[in-house]
Amino acid sequence: MNKQQIGVIGLAVMGKNLAWNIESRGNSVSVYNRSSDKTDLMMKESDGKNIHPTYTLEEFVNSLESPRKIMMMVKAGEATDATIESLLPLLDEGDILIDGGNTNYNDTIRRNVYLSEKGINFIGTGVSGGEEGALHGPSIMPGGQKEAYELVRPILESIAAKAKDGKPCVAYIGPDGAGHYVKMVHNGIEYADMQLIAESYDLMKNVLHMSHQEIADTFKTWNEGELDSYLIEITADIFNKLDEDGTPLVEKVLDKAGQKGTGKWTSINALDLGVPLTIITESVFARTISSQKDERVIAHEAIRNEKNNFEGNKEEFLEAIREALYMSKICCYAQGFAQMKEASTSYNWNLQLGDLAMIWREGCIIRAQFLQKIKDAYDLDNNLQNLLLDPYFKGIVEKYQQSLRKVASTAIMTGTPVPTFASAINYFDSYTAKDLPANLIQAQRDYFGAHTYERKDRAGTFHTDWK
Amino acid sequence: MNKQQIGVIGLAVMGKNLAWNIESRGNSVSVYNRSSDKTDLMMKESDGKNIHPTYTLEEFVNSLESPRKIMMMVKAGEATDATIESLLPLLDEGDILIDGGNTNYNDTIRRNVYLSEKGINFIGTGVSGGEEGALHGPSIMPGGQKEAYELVRPILESIAAKAKDGKPCVAYIGPDGAGHYVKMVHNGIEYADMQLIAESYDLMKNVLHMSHQEIADTFKTWNEGELDSYLIEITADIFNKLDEDGTPLVEKVLDKAGQKGTGKWTSINALDLGVPLTIITESVFARTISSQKDERVIAHEAIRNEKNNFEGNKEEFLEAIREALYMSKICCYAQGFAQMKEASTSYNWNLQLGDLAMIWREGCIIRAQFLQKIKDAYDLDNNLQNLLLDPYFKGIVEKYQQSLRKVASTAIMTGTPVPTFASAINYFDSYTAKDLPANLIQAQRDYFGAHTYERKDRAGTFHTDWK
Repeated sequence: MNKQQIGVIGLAVMGKNLAWNIESRGNSVSVYNRSSDKTDLMMKESDGKNIHPTYTLEEFVNSLESPRKIMMMVKAGEATDATIESLLPLLDEGDILIDGGNTNYNDTIRRNVYLSEKGINFIGTGVSGGEEGALHGPSIMPGGQKEAYELVRPILESIAAKAKDGKPCVAYIGPDGAGHYVKMVHNGIEYADMQLIAESYDLMKNVLHMSHQEIADTFKTWNEGELDSYLIEITADIFNKLDEDGTPLVEKVLDKAGQKGTGKWTSINALDLGVPLTIITESVFARTISSQKDERVIAHEAIRNEKNNFEGNKEEFLEAIREALYMSKICCYAQGFAQMKEASTSYNWNLQLGDLAMIWREGCIIRAQFLQKIKDAYDLDNNLQNLLLDPYFKGIVEKYQQSLRKVASTAIMTGTPVPTFASAINYFDSYTAKDLPANLIQAQRDYFGAHTYERKDRAGTFHTDWK
Repeated sequence: MNKQQIGVIGLAVMGKNLAWNIESRGNSVSVYNRSSDKTDLMMKESDGKNIHPTYTLEEFVNSLESPRKIMMMVKAGEATDATIESLLPLLDEGDILIDGGNTNYNDTIRRNVYLSEKGINFIGTGVSGGEEGALHGPSIMPGGQKEAYELVRPILESIAAKAKDGKPCVAYIGPDGAGHYVKMVHNGIEYADMQLIAESYDLMKNVLHMSHQEIADTFKTWNEGELDSYLIEITADIFNKLDEDGTPLVEKVLDKAGQKGTGKWTSINALDLGVPLTIITESVFARTISSQKDERVIAHEAIRNEKNNFEGNKEEFLEAIREALYMSKICCYAQGFAQMKEASTSYNWNLQLGDLAMIWREGCIIRAQFLQKIKDAYDLDNNLQNLLLDPYFKGIVEKYQQSLRKVASTAIMTGTPVPTFASAINYFDSYTAKDLPANLIQAQRDYFGAHTYERKDRAGTFHTDWK
């Protein structure tokens, strides 16, 4: 019997679609699922496709060419550990396990160490793009042993999304947990992108009193310019969607945002690394406030919220929102990429930040034309400290800052919550501040806790009796 | 030989001061330090005081009456575990170990379980008030076995700060890690209180162009009203302090704020619990941005930051800052107390939120007259969902919201970073919003990930093909 090039374990929708994607690029693939009914179902749907089904783990493992390449598409967490343990006795030294789940990078680091002690290569890879991406071409972020990556590289490059310049949206990210880490930050950025769009919609609806048709048209137009991206595109679609009664469906959707954890992991990591990540973190907290719907309804009834009227020019303000959105997005990516730069140093990952922008250009949820600008920035200066210092992005934020100031301050005056717009302008103003009032904080800490302080005018550590 | 009522291990400044405090209230106390020179030094400084020095752990443990009460004042972390292990062989069932360090509550939970299996009681207690507080009366937040607390209660009540009504600033907080948890949130609130004051100072200096004398006088005046608190009081002192050259010393202090971790722990816990904690978190991130001084100086030179002039009435704006500060403080405490309410449920701690406000009234860094209002709020409704719903606080935020809107929006227009003022008004506007734009986020999640959504008009879970 011919051996297959790669195997996929776990045939829920992501695993199934990925297997079909692999097959469609001319790779041979074995599949296995713990309960055989999913395997049978997949085979029924695989008419005309060259999928090799297996019904025991032994059969599955034996069907693969050596070194074996096994992609696990199981639920992140205990199921991943259980799958690894059940596979271990059947594997040979040099085989390659690939975890394509939404796994916490700390778990991936642990598993990589554990398996490498047994001679097994372990690649933890982010796979972004949802079900559609898995089937037609996701953005893929693999981390682990470099030499193992080289062996699966042809298959991963064949199934990945392709950018406009033809390059596949996959690249080696770095050792152990680097791939899942980068996927985590990708998801954190996704939270912020979505919250910024939501705040823009709130302003259009409640400050500018635009109709849903106008809002849909606006996002459609925006998608033809600097903001060209998947999330803006689907937002236009959403506002065009009508419910059975002919009114906009989005207004029927309950305003309690769910979350699966990757956003908060990103914030927790930023807090641990000591890097500012205000915009993503505000977007995570915005979801938690939204989920307190019952309490908000009570507070809305109980507490008088005085909203001032908007008195500016509507057309100008709408353009200001567009510019504010683009500038805030830039500030958000500046924070996210600065976090990854710090992580790269802290964890010895040697991340190539330009590559990350490159492989996010297509396939994933945050895909956007603007990512080419980030790639260009790192091509210009591979060691760029912060995206805001790149000539293109510096030009944009210098030009659009007044719009962001206007939008954030108008929102605050009209009682429209804009946690991410506000944190974006505050980040800009903090980051470009030669002096911040933290000198007072250091003086206070020295006053009550004798924590000592440094001085601006000379070196050393000082303590003062401030009374 | 008479046995002593309590022992203190670790004679750095906090342990030494606490031992002297214990002795000064008529309690008998043994002291021990791993290196004897600290013990000798303390004894030299203890002339006329009834301190019982010991030089071996055996001597120390044997000098204590049964059940033994041992207060550990060692560096949080490995030193605490090492001290516990060295004591364990010498202890008897029912003895009480007390950790008075700045310990992470997760470690305290772990140690409480570990020791209770060996029949040893373990109390983890927050001690706030710095060196001065330890000596003259700190705010004390003990968690652990209730029956063990009752045995140390007379001593703790004797050494704690006393509020204006004579009540000691100590109360049983709850099981295992509850005491250190509450101390952690206390510290998180302290971060936000300090950042809000720092932003007020920035506005006074850079928008209102006030002199340091005017700023000092302003804080002094503010300390006589609603803002009456230790941190406002010391801020006035700080602005009055001149350097040797006769100029304000605070301006010589380097604007890089340090941190020891309790602030970020508070934010990480809020993210894990899924409760909004934007104001404290922004203050933690503000410290991290401040610490990037070198990069800020580069960004300041490289990027044009366009600041608009302030054109309002200076006196009115100064009063608006005062009102904004008080309202933001209220929003911050509302978030912190809501977090503790959620923690109480999640960890089965049965926290008495009114007691917490009560024991923070004196002794600790965030002591303030305003804490009496929080105590009153929980006396009125022990199950209060959020402080903003209490009649007193509701009245204040309704009255001061326009000032906070004005201050935050003016700061944004004048390019003054106000991450905590901005997050406070955004929290207020989000919390009192019947509808948030999270319906769009749910629609987007359903669009790209088939995450499904709920509806406002009927029960159930829905999925739509939005294209």
